[in-house]
Amino acid sequence: MGMELRIAMKVLSAMMLVLPLSLGACAPPGKPAAMQDPRTPGGASPTREDMLAVSPALAGYSTGREDLWKRPGLSPRDWSIVTVAALVARGHTVDMSSHLERALDLGVKPAEVSEIIMHLAFYSGWASAMSAVPVARDVFERRAIRPDQLPPAVGDLLPLDVAAEAQRAARVEQSFGAVAPGVVQITTDLLFHELWLRPALAPRDRSLVTVSALVATGHAAQLSYHLNRAMGFGLTRTEVSEALTQLAFYAGWPSVFTSLPAVREVFEKRAEPHPG
Amino acid sequence: MGMELRIAMKVLSAMMLVLPLSLGACAPPGKPAAMQDPRTPGGASPTREDMLAVSPALAGYSTGREDLWKRPGLSPRDWSIVTVAALVARGHTVDMSSHLERALDLGVKPAEVSEIIMHLAFYSGWASAMSAVPVARDVFERRAIRPDQLPPAVGDLLPLDVAAEAQRAARVEQSFGAVAPGVVQITTDLLFHELWLRPALAPRDRSLVTVSALVATGHAAQLSYHLNRAMGFGLTRTEVSEALTQLAFYAGWPSVFTSLPAVREVFEKRAEPHPG
Amino acid sequence: MGMELRIAMKVLSAMMLVLPLSLGACAPPGKPAAMQDPRTPGGASPTREDMLAVSPALAGYSTGREDLWKRPGLSPRDWSIVTVAALVARGHTVDMSSHLERALDLGVKPAEVSEIIMHLAFYSGWASAMSAVPVARDVFERRAIRPDQLPPAVGDLLPLDVAAEAQRAARVEQSFGAVAPGVVQITTDLLFHELWLRPALAPRDRSLVTVSALVATGHAAQLSYHLNRAMGFGLTRTEVSEALTQLAFYAGWPSVFTSLPAVREVFEKRAEPHPG
Repeated sequence: MGMELRIAMKVLSAMMLVLPLSLGACAPPGKPAAMQDPRTPGGASPTREDMLAVSPALAGYSTGREDLWKRPGLSPRDWSIVTVAALVARGHTVDMSSHLERALDLGVKPAEVSEIIMHLAFYSGWASAMSAVPVARDVFERRAIRPDQLPPAVGDLLPLDVAAEAQRAARVEQSFGAVAPGVVQITTDLLFHELWLRPALAPRDRSLVTVSALVATGHAAQLSYHLNRAMGFGLTRTEVSEALTQLAFYAGWPSVFTSLPAVREVFEKRAEPHPG
Repeated sequence: MGMELRIAMKVLSAMMLVLPLSLGACAPPGKPAAMQDPRTPGGASPTREDMLAVSPALAGYSTGREDLWKRPGLSPRDWSIVTVAALVARGHTVDMSSHLERALDLGVKPAEVSEIIMHLAFYSGWASAMSAVPVARDVFERRAIRPDQLPPAVGDLLPLDVAAEAQRAARVEQSFGAVAPGVVQITTDLLFHELWLRPALAPRDRSLVTVSALVATGHAAQLSYHLNRAMGFGLTRTEVSEALTQLAFYAGWPSVFTSLPAVREVFEKRAEPHPG
Repeated sequence: MGMELRIAMKVLSAMMLVLPLSLGACAPPGKPAAMQDPRTPGGASPTREDMLAVSPALAGYSTGREDLWKRPGLSPRDWSIVTVAALVARGHTVDMSSHLERALDLGVKPAEVSEIIMHLAFYSGWASAMSAVPVARDVFERRAIRPDQLPPAVGDLLPLDVAAEAQRAARVEQSFGAVAPGVVQITTDLLFHELWLRPALAPRDRSLVTVSALVATGHAAQLSYHLNRAMGFGLTRTEVSEALTQLAFYAGWPSVFTSLPAVREVFEKRAEPHPG
């Protein structure tokens, strides 16, 4: 595959010389490059002209990256969820608008986009979600997505897995109950009795968002619990592995390599036969 | 408390439908939502309308979060110091303006706000402070805060705790003197013989800012020294514990959970009776 | 040096009162302070007036920091490479424009600036590079730097060190081949068979960029491999040590102290006599 990928990239790079538009990071049409501000609420990406003016190779790789989205093992919808989660978690509004558009094109529902941003308010800090709000608002407006298509603030919740939650709560209480009782309490009340039970984003997708955010923000120490949880909700080893491939580009190689030992440990422990 | 908090949030969410303004993240009045740019120098937050257009739940939690500020154990002034420190350290200008205003309302002096930003230039990178400068300048201008109310560049310093500083310097010299003598030298000269002795921010508050920044930026390895220092300056276990509760929202749950083992270790060691 | 530095800073602080321009962070001339937006594509820094309005000390240290650039042990060109790498890796556009200008003034070629940004697309996440693109484009335009002065997307590569690369690939395959085969594959194909062999940035400089980015983004776990690689390419202990001094300011003290144990370990292992 290595050789194929390089050849594909060279062909695509050559094609770029005649192609009039960027495939990887499209700017809204009709806006001249000089007016692009990647930090405007619209979160528009630099144009292909911007990239060519700074690094033709960057433009080349941007096109070549499209191959990534065609790798088997992770659905295009999941690629989008991973990418959007990484961008929101890292506060990278510069590339956010086109990826929100793409997510909606690839089958992520508006209600799910809404819920991903809200989920990350808790898992990557309130301000990360706040940074994404104006970008998402613009995308929703362009598509005439109305508030009644979005999950309500308060509503029915999914049933709680009482046994698993009791186990989690007991372990956290034992570890940190005496150190930070407030944290332990709101973790139970707001996250595990509420956020994770909101029905607008399937638990498996919520876990994929969480794992992606943890990798993207370098929180390897929290990966073990959340990766096990994700796989309990049905995320496969192949999907995890391919999500890491995508995250190498969107969160940087070091974030992924820092996460790999924890991922390996989870895979190995889950593969062991149960004793007895 | 869990049930109470959820009920409070539901009531508040219902109230939000009729309340004309956001309680949690106020945008400057008189500016239509469409002109809000969270990344302008003013650092204005998304409006309640922005949040509702993307996630009604986000708007709901934003209001519910107000309960946090009423928890006992940490003074409202300290909540503000923790929050401002987290936002500046993470470069999150999006939520910064309203929190600087609130800090000033809750008793943090302009000179202290000034000094918090300067302190974080050293503890979270020069550019983090630079990102906060235009936001703080706008807030100061709106309140007619003049430069003569701010700490001078050079002035009298607090007395140095010679014994404690000798111990710190010796340990750092022994650990890293041969590896990075320049770092060791400027750490002594600029930080511990100067920055920490500037009188405009009490050592206890400076420590609270430092600890909050370390949690918010995931530097768990540096927590042990600074948490002990903070508690030596009078920060209580309860205050640390409640600061972590606040940081869960402003820095994200993973940042807090990554910090908790180091916090627990410090608490446990300080609780041990002295030998002999 | 400590005393000298403090005296120098006091003299410089006094000079600042009469100097009409900032030495540390120049804003483009002709733009009134009130119109400065540190997050515009130009990436202009806050002016000296902005800093004085928030923290006279911040302005004072900004001037005093100039002394850093005169420390022996690291060339001014290398200071610039370290600083630009830290800013791009952390997405800090606020201070980026003046540092890109300074890098070009101090002998970093346009082709090298281009390649540093492209390199960091891989080592600190695609969006970090995208954030730098509009800033660099403006700088390049002001200096009439044309695309034909920039490295092409595809071209001749440096020869591969086959033995060293085989060793690296085998170790990564053994560690993570079963966990994330896609990551392992693209690491070989895109990074070590391509990115690192692009001739527009010398391997030693590419390593300096990588190490600076790892320190700046807190990826201490990846430092050991890349620091050894950097020193294999000729980076000296003194240069590493001085780079860390610079990074204390641009990435914050905690990032440097979190990195120091890994740096010490590399230094110690490399100093050991070879067995036998």
